[in-house]
Amino acid sequence: MKLASLADGRDGRLVVVSADLRRAVDAGPIAPTLQAALDRWAEVAPRLQELSDRLASGTEAGFAFDAAACASPLPRAFQWADGSAYVNHVELVRRARGAELPASFWTDPLMYQGGSDAFLGPHDPITLPDPEWGVDFEGEIAVIIDDVPLGASRTEALKAIRLVMLCNDVSLRNLIPGELAKGFGFFQSKPASAFSPVAVTPEALGPAWQDGRLHLPLHSWLNGVAFGKPDAGLDMTFDFGTLIAHAARSRRLSAGTIIGSGTVSNRGEDGGPGRRVDEGGVGYSCIAELRMIETIQTGKPATPFMQPGDTVRIEMFDGEGRSIFGAIDQRFLPADPPETAA
Amino acid sequence: MKLASLADGRDGRLVVVSADLRRAVDAGPIAPTLQAALDRWAEVAPRLQELSDRLASGTEAGFAFDAAACASPLPRAFQWADGSAYVNHVELVRRARGAELPASFWTDPLMYQGGSDAFLGPHDPITLPDPEWGVDFEGEIAVIIDDVPLGASRTEALKAIRLVMLCNDVSLRNLIPGELAKGFGFFQSKPASAFSPVAVTPEALGPAWQDGRLHLPLHSWLNGVAFGKPDAGLDMTFDFGTLIAHAARSRRLSAGTIIGSGTVSNRGEDGGPGRRVDEGGVGYSCIAELRMIETIQTGKPATPFMQPGDTVRIEMFDGEGRSIFGAIDQRFLPADPPETAA
Repeated sequence: MKLASLADGRDGRLVVVSADLRRAVDAGPIAPTLQAALDRWAEVAPRLQELSDRLASGTEAGFAFDAAACASPLPRAFQWADGSAYVNHVELVRRARGAELPASFWTDPLMYQGGSDAFLGPHDPITLPDPEWGVDFEGEIAVIIDDVPLGASRTEALKAIRLVMLCNDVSLRNLIPGELAKGFGFFQSKPASAFSPVAVTPEALGPAWQDGRLHLPLHSWLNGVAFGKPDAGLDMTFDFGTLIAHAARSRRLSAGTIIGSGTVSNRGEDGGPGRRVDEGGVGYSCIAELRMIETIQTGKPATPFMQPGDTVRIEMFDGEGRSIFGAIDQRFLPADPPETAA
Repeated sequence: MKLASLADGRDGRLVVVSADLRRAVDAGPIAPTLQAALDRWAEVAPRLQELSDRLASGTEAGFAFDAAACASPLPRAFQWADGSAYVNHVELVRRARGAELPASFWTDPLMYQGGSDAFLGPHDPITLPDPEWGVDFEGEIAVIIDDVPLGASRTEALKAIRLVMLCNDVSLRNLIPGELAKGFGFFQSKPASAFSPVAVTPEALGPAWQDGRLHLPLHSWLNGVAFGKPDAGLDMTFDFGTLIAHAARSRRLSAGTIIGSGTVSNRGEDGGPGRRVDEGGVGYSCIAELRMIETIQTGKPATPFMQPGDTVRIEMFDGEGRSIFGAIDQRFLPADPPETAA
């Protein structure tokens, strides 16, 4: 089953989307919003599935699905906690800023609390006032979960996964060192994130969803040029069950919580950082990793962070080349300066 | 105007509360929940005020208000961002763990993103599995805001404050050093927070609300013994307008966002850390500060963090000794260990 939220008010309007992303049908009579559906999933999901079946069989005609009309599946959420499960990415990014990787990072997941009150729609521009902040994208996998009790095990956590999405966890690279030095987390260096137009149940992902990991390449393009296609099932040190259990160690988690994987990243065949796409590698899911490779090769980074007008596209395909979640497709547009001063 | 949410489902049931906290009236016909009211505040607030006036005049009888029947004013919120505006507290806590205070902390606010998907009710127990985690309370002031645009000024931010509350930002002192060392913020060391039963509009606070600060003592008791009564209007280096503008530097904030002050803390008359209540001082709003004083005086802390069964009460009174927000009144009860293992 595939679900999306058409942009409409603060919480969007829930629709069921066909497997091929061509048709959609209003789910309003069952649940007006995705959060409302998640609030009573056990009761609502079978009815949404039935509607999905009717859309698939043609009993329900629906209407043409337009990803550009979508808000984030959850336009606002009660929680967004992002892990950093591809430790290869953490190692590269830290090396790029001259920081060591503690050995514990391979056994104890990193996770930060992100802002969840106003996500960007999948085709919304990334509007930020200052290009000097170092705007980067981060291609990730994310899951939406049901209620999870305090102290839940990995097994319990895996059972609570209701939907899977793609994410662009927009990052402000030049603000990160200052924010992390203050010791309170990323705050200003993590502006609003975007998610794929469509959220998909684990069941509908078939054999690609296994062991709490999504075993398919995550494609990204910068200004239309292939940038990365690392396999999201490879080198994911911590699976989603482990990430969710980590989040639930000292508190229960409420339905509609979104848990992120962190930037998808594969090691190279030689165990090293891996090659660029145009050099035959699987590339990267953020500019920071490429800049690290450039620094290793030439002593300094060559690829700038996103410049005004630059575009990023993030998408995933099934074995037949069909888009699973629709595309995140965003342009960086500097915001107007605020009209009033402090 | 004073508002509260009676415990009922995931979002509670909105009631208008009388100034003396004795009566309440169902606000359901105007807005079923506080979040629903905040989503269209300009339209809803005058109608809630009218209901409040009818309750005050006796035109509306209402029913007896019971703080123990309350959930958090926002039982779950789309954002909880907690500042650390009383730099005196930051300096003490850092000194206690042997960390320096950078000079920039006096000019650049500290702020962390907290979990907001499942707050504790004001009289709910604090259930955590391990007393060794070092359970501490933190008495704070918090505000609920309306929509705030990206890059808002302090002046714009101040105008967006809709409601004021008290907060117990529960902290796990023995988990903090490990979490902060990982560089991603407090995550596991900040479990669910609790807020006062009643949220109050700035207008209803009268002259005590000035310059984005609440100029009244914040009282706290540990096991019924007076622990602190520092003035929340003193030594607040960053007012709420500055804190909100800080949060909005790289993203817009949505209606219903909660911004916290950090632990309320006053310097002593000599500019030092200040004396205990039983020694004639204003005391502290968390155990960590007292432990720091003890360490300075005797070389080691004497007061333990909260033990199973310990209680904390946090409350604020007007000039006539009447409770303004009702009390946060919580007991630390260890949670049962989870039934299943990983």
